[in-house]
Amino acid sequence: MRYFEDFTEGQVVELGTRVVTREEILAFAREFDPQPFHMDEEAAARSPYGGLIASGWHTVAMWMRLYVDAVLADSSSLGSPGVEELRWLLPVRPGDTLSGRAKIIWAKPSERHANRGTIFAESELSNQDGEVVMRLRARGLFGRRPPEV
Amino acid sequence: MRYFEDFTEGQVVELGTRVVTREEILAFAREFDPQPFHMDEEAAARSPYGGLIASGWHTVAMWMRLYVDAVLADSSSLGSPGVEELRWLLPVRPGDTLSGRAKIIWAKPSERHANRGTIFAESELSNQDGEVVMRLRARGLFGRRPPEV
Repeated sequence: MRYFEDFTEGQVVELGTRVVTREEILAFAREFDPQPFHMDEEAAARSPYGGLIASGWHTVAMWMRLYVDAVLADSSSLGSPGVEELRWLLPVRPGDTLSGRAKIIWAKPSERHANRGTIFAESELSNQDGEVVMRLRARGLFGRRPPEV
Repeated sequence: MRYFEDFTEGQVVELGTRVVTREEILAFAREFDPQPFHMDEEAAARSPYGGLIASGWHTVAMWMRLYVDAVLADSSSLGSPGVEELRWLLPVRPGDTLSGRAKIIWAKPSERHANRGTIFAESELSNQDGEVVMRLRARGLFGRRPPEV
């Protein structure tokens, strides 16, 4: 079980990989981001992207799944108040293999809640060519380790 | 058809409303954010949120759908380089009715591409009690209006 105390400044966590499928790009786009370059092959080919690309919100949602599986799944996570910065740096295309990495920038105990703390992490998602396709700087709330009984 | 030239500083666009369902909260959480307070009623009831809440990434994806339908659907949108700030201010729960609004902060022609421009918008999502549940500050790229033939 991972508690606030288990996060330290400078710590780097590898989040694992995920293959992006055409079907998932289309399904996400149909539901949340139905723009031509996310759901219409021909229109996407004519766009400046030259082909189908994942919605940026789909890309960050795929990062989130990696982050949950690698970090939050067995933790005292209490959610997040938000994001300082999110950059979509390069297109994400069908067949890409994305790798996630998170670096802890700082970790501070809460002043209001003795049993909580906040971490600030900078995360990246890279493709199979080692290019960073997305960068995210965001906070996360965690419960502190309970005193041993 | 909405082009870069149709966005002006201070302009406010109402994005319409969307009802949040329990099924959609669970489906999104299962796929992208499987934390207990997003997908397990009993665990959510014991959490500080006191019940099931939508993933913040689901909340912003629902905002995106409103924004696409109201603004991007019939436009020269070319995607977005990223987000300056995203805040999840209050929990979003099953049955909530969310209303979106976007305000154009600035609009600047591209210096590199004569046929493009960037807008910077501050958007909000409010619930049925008029409380702002999410705030987003982000850029958008648009094609410029072609010269009349």
